Amino acid sequence: MIDLSKLPRTIEMKRDADDGALLVYIDERFLPGELRIEKTGDWKKVVDAVKTLAVRGAPAIGIAGAGAVTLWACNEGSERARAFGCGEATVRFLDELSVVAAEVSEARPTAVNLAWAVERIVHLAQTVASEGVSPDLIAEEMYREVRRMVREDEAVNRAMGANGAALLAEGSRILTHCNAGSLATAFYGTALGVVYAAAEQGKVERVYADETRPVGQGARLTAWELAKAGVPVTLICDNMAASLMAQGCIDAVIVGADRITANGDAANKIGTYGVAVLAKHHGIPMYIVAPSSTIDMSLASGSEIPIEQRAATEVLPQAIEGVDVYNPAFDVTPAELITKIVTERGVFAPEELSAAYA
Amino acid sequence: MIDLSKLPRTIEMKRDADDGALLVYIDERFLPGELRIEKTGDWKKVVDAVKTLAVRGAPAIGIAGAGAVTLWACNEGSERARAFGCGEATVRFLDELSVVAAEVSEARPTAVNLAWAVERIVHLAQTVASEGVSPDLIAEEMYREVRRMVREDEAVNRAMGANGAALLAEGSRILTHCNAGSLATAFYGTALGVVYAAAEQGKVERVYADETRPVGQGARLTAWELAKAGVPVTLICDNMAASLMAQGCIDAVIVGADRITANGDAANKIGTYGVAVLAKHHGIPMYIVAPSSTIDMSLASGSEIPIEQRAATEVLPQAIEGVDVYNPAFDVTPAELITKIVTERGVFAPEELSAAYA
Repeated sequence: MIDLSKLPRTIEMKRDADDGALLVYIDERFLPGELRIEKTGDWKKVVDAVKTLAVRGAPAIGIAGAGAVTLWACNEGSERARAFGCGEATVRFLDELSVVAAEVSEARPTAVNLAWAVERIVHLAQTVASEGVSPDLIAEEMYREVRRMVREDEAVNRAMGANGAALLAEGSRILTHCNAGSLATAFYGTALGVVYAAAEQGKVERVYADETRPVGQGARLTAWELAKAGVPVTLICDNMAASLMAQGCIDAVIVGADRITANGDAANKIGTYGVAVLAKHHGIPMYIVAPSSTIDMSLASGSEIPIEQRAATEVLPQAIEGVDVYNPAFDVTPAELITKIVTERGVFAPEELSAAYA
Repeated sequence: MIDLSKLPRTIEMKRDADDGALLVYIDERFLPGELRIEKTGDWKKVVDAVKTLAVRGAPAIGIAGAGAVTLWACNEGSERARAFGCGEATVRFLDELSVVAAEVSEARPTAVNLAWAVERIVHLAQTVASEGVSPDLIAEEMYREVRRMVREDEAVNRAMGANGAALLAEGSRILTHCNAGSLATAFYGTALGVVYAAAEQGKVERVYADETRPVGQGARLTAWELAKAGVPVTLICDNMAASLMAQGCIDAVIVGADRITANGDAANKIGTYGVAVLAKHHGIPMYIVAPSSTIDMSLASGSEIPIEQRAATEVLPQAIEGVDVYNPAFDVTPAELITKIVTERGVFAPEELSAAYA
């Protein structure tokens, strides 16, 4: 009974009636209670949405980042550049663009997709500019590029889904952590894309979703979207996964990633590393599913990945006198605990990655 | 700066001005916001307190159980027995006592201390009755026995504290899960008793407290009591322990237990098993601290321990359509993952337990 038409699109770039560019996205802080769709032409609002986790998930924040820079270009930058002469206008535009791009890139540090997508859109602007095109038209090309990125994201997810589903046997009971679902991407998802593809092949008996403290992406997002799409899902607390594994209830662990380094180490939501250790102990395969844009060949290993530390109030809304809080948003799973890395290009052992992506 | 005088007593048996028996206990559901002390002479209210986790922790629910049966004896049973003739009164009293005792014992299934303490108080009543004593005086003896159990509990905890502290090196950074603290006992604690004893010896650098979803005993109780007593404490989400271990920030794991079987397997709060697997992977010692009353030599191994399943609403207060919830309150850590078991009698390898407690 899998029906993906029940799932909303997570993020899109559109134009309003006055020809202004708009980013349309789900504010995921209100799920599962409310499916709130935001529309904005203001790039700073998108940066805030990324910082506050209204938009989250490595591929989705990539699109949000490229989208934010493009909102600036379409709705502010090209307008401001008009005050200057022809050649000067483009120089000014690109200068201001690079300042905006830097601010957008720094909204969150761990997922490389954000920097990757912002770089892609800046590079496109520079390339178009070098052909002597005016800021108006550069902005137009950027707008088209973001729309292309949205379509590509879904296509890449569907390709990963097919690649990953081939790894699963019939009747699979899958554990996932955090939300690497349709809600973490433009549509379809990375880890949950594999679940959807496998479910369409009748292979998925049930998904166990870790609630994923402190922000609860598993409880609020993964459980919601799987149920919406018709995939049998059981929510558990993060500390229950080991017990399920010991009882023989988990056949595979499937998660996403925020950054994968050349040696096959993978940063993902805090708790993923612990799940990987548990999977290893119980002889359960650990699959990481992420698009090629998540692979950062510039870093040799996971110890070089910056780990975002977030506010104590996420863990403890009301402080207790004398109690400290530690709240890293990510951890790093070393390559030796990863069975396979699934990208849109194929299925790789971690040690095969550097040759495939050299 | 350890100051245990800052910690309240968790559960005590007292007498009010009218000579009625009272159980005085902290309703821990209101911590850390409010230190609410309840006083009741009604045994059924105590059973409710155990079921709703107002009173929790294996040693504390043992005392609550014996206390509940004793409240019945002092405030209802001996009164009702007076209607009957001398010999008949005692027979009726013991009959009704056994019905009450059975109901109290079944309030929660996993911790053996509850059944152990109820059996102890029933056995005392039967022994005293066999000496031809009237229900009034039997009830009085039961009252004294519960007060003795409270004193014994603290003494046992202090003995375990000394035994366990000897295992720790100076500068120890300790991870604990759930609350096996003063708040889980009459006073002082089991796992946290070891922490207090070691802290008094200047050996504790810091305790990392798992928040312990879904009920949050770590966040609400362990963090609160450690801070209150002056022990440096950092609260983490359950899924962050692995990351701390990988960073070399944890020197020992110290937890309590709800039931330990003859082979050294130990049931404890859900998530303990996962922590034990992580500790093993990182070469960190895993210590279980529990009084002898937690050891159930009648069970050969942990697979025979009944595991309490609790309501879905603990995990997900507002149901999500189509989302199932799995919520076991305990898991079992197999003996091979346990470094040492600390009781008031000494420090044992799991495999030494059956000989020591034969």
